[in-house]
Amino acid sequence: MADEALFQFLHSEIIQYVNSVESGESENGRCVSKLESMGFRVGQGLIERFTKDTPRFKDELDFMKFICKDFWTSVFKKQIDNLRTNHQGIYVLQDNKFRLLSQLSSGKQYLEHAPKFLAFTCGLVRGALSNLGVKSIVTAEVSVMPACKFQVMIQKM
Amino acid sequence: MADEALFQFLHSEIIQYVNSVESGESENGRCVSKLESMGFRVGQGLIERFTKDTPRFKDELDFMKFICKDFWTSVFKKQIDNLRTNHQGIYVLQDNKFRLLSQLSSGKQYLEHAPKFLAFTCGLVRGALSNLGVKSIVTAEVSVMPACKFQVMIQKM
Repeated sequence: MADEALFQFLHSEIIQYVNSVESGESENGRCVSKLESMGFRVGQGLIERFTKDTPRFKDELDFMKFICKDFWTSVFKKQIDNLRTNHQGIYVLQDNKFRLLSQLSSGKQYLEHAPKFLAFTCGLVRGALSNLGVKSIVTAEVSVMPACKFQVMIQKM
Repeated sequence: MADEALFQFLHSEIIQYVNSVESGESENGRCVSKLESMGFRVGQGLIERFTKDTPRFKDELDFMKFICKDFWTSVFKKQIDNLRTNHQGIYVLQDNKFRLLSQLSSGKQYLEHAPKFLAFTCGLVRGALSNLGVKSIVTAEVSVMPACKFQVMIQKM
C-alpha cells in the first residue's frame, strides 16, 4: 500500500512539473510526449527485471498476456480487466479502474486532462514491448473515468 | 522487488529531466531545490497514509524513530542503520547502503553528483516531519558511497 502511494505521488509530481516546464503553444502535446518518453525508459528497465526468471515467450499474444497480468500487477496492483485483439497486431487492454486516474474526479470536465495521466503508462507499455523486441504504437482513451483503454498497435518489421 | 525498481527508475528519470531543464548559471542549486520540493510534497502525502492507524507520538524522538523505522522501510525497504541525536534538536540518520545511491559507481569522481540523488529524500523527510507539525532543515552528506548521513535540524517555534 505504501509503495502504491509512493508511485502515485511521484507520478503526480512529475506530471505537475513537466506540465509547468513544457509550456507554450503546443504545451499539452510536448508535456504528453515528454511523459511518454520517461515511461518508455522506465518500461524498458522494468521489463528486464521482471523477465529475468521468466521462460521464453511463445508469441506476440504471450507477450501481451504477460503485460496484462504480471507486469500490470507489479506496477498497478491489479490485472488488466479485459484483453481483446483482432489477431492482426492490434490489442486493446481495458482497465476498469485505472489507478493513476482514480485520484481524479470522475466529472466530465476533467476528461481533457486525462492524456497527461495516461502518457507515462503508454510509454511504459511501449518500452516494455520494445525490450521484448516488439515495436509498437500505444495510445490511450478514456470515456468514463477511471476506466480506460490502451490500444497497442504492433509494428511489423 | 518490482516496486523498488519502479521507484528507482522513476527517481532517476526525474533527476535526469529536472537536471536537463534547470540549466544555467546556478544549475546544480536549482535542480537540487526543485527535487527537494518534490520530495517535500511526496513526504507530506506519504506520512498521512502511513500514520493513519498509528498511535499518537509522544515526542520528537518518537517521531524520528518512526521515520527511521516504519517510514524508511516503506520507502527504501530497509531501516536507517544508525540514529544519533544531541538531544537539542539535531538528529543524524545514517544509512550505510542508501538505495538511491546504490546505482552509482562508488568512485570518488561521482561524489559531486551525490547531492542530486539525495535532494528528493531530504525533501521527503522534511515533508513528513512538517505534516507531523515539526519544522526542520534536512541536509545530506556522503563520504563513501553508497553510505550517507541525513542531518535533521529541528526548528524551534
